Amino acid sequence: MASLLDLPEGVTLPHAPEFFETLLQDGKGMRVERIVSWGHVTPEGEWYDQSADEWVVVLEGEARLGFGDGTEHILGRGEHLFLPRHVRHRVLQTSRPCIWLAVHAPELARG
Amino acid sequence: MASLLDLPEGVTLPHAPEFFETLLQDGKGMRVERIVSWGHVTPEGEWYDQSADEWVVVLEGEARLGFGDGTEHILGRGEHLFLPRHVRHRVLQTSRPCIWLAVHAPELARG
Repeated sequence: MASLLDLPEGVTLPHAPEFFETLLQDGKGMRVERIVSWGHVTPEGEWYDQSADEWVVVLEGEARLGFGDGTEHILGRGEHLFLPRHVRHRVLQTSRPCIWLAVHAPELARG
Repeated sequence: MASLLDLPEGVTLPHAPEFFETLLQDGKGMRVERIVSWGHVTPEGEWYDQSADEWVVVLEGEARLGFGDGTEHILGRGEHLFLPRHVRHRVLQTSRPCIWLAVHAPELARG
């Protein structure tokens, strides 16, 4: 049975890029993505500033996110965070591995 | 930080119902749901026969699903399964707890 916790081949090698995989899409702008980080962080001075809403949950490991307003959030296994569009954020730290599930859609409402 | 692995109050009590919680929706028919089972199964003789596609992943514990064609699938932590609309299925067994994430949408494409 396919497991989201399996490590993609090569992701643990030095200088391997972060791994991104689209699991699902609905043809209306919604996309479910698996991300496998291995210590990857957003490069110094760069920010994510996305035109779509995003929701992330950490399936394995831990991540630290920083926001444009100076706040930080640590996400452990099972912890999730809503990232509204155009809220500037950066990934400051990830464990080896840090496995994420991300849901992207133009407009996401919680609950 | 909110964790999908937290047990909802009362779910471990005898005869407590299965717990369903909508986490996200996009206004176009897509819905992300958290389900917390505690030994719950589909009642004898009943089947799920859904008009929308569904994708499930087990975040904690284990589940056994049965299908109209007689096949069975066991899902452990991190394992996921696509359930196309109108594919009849039943939940035969769940651990205590079994925590699921489900994505529902009229039409889901993989990858």
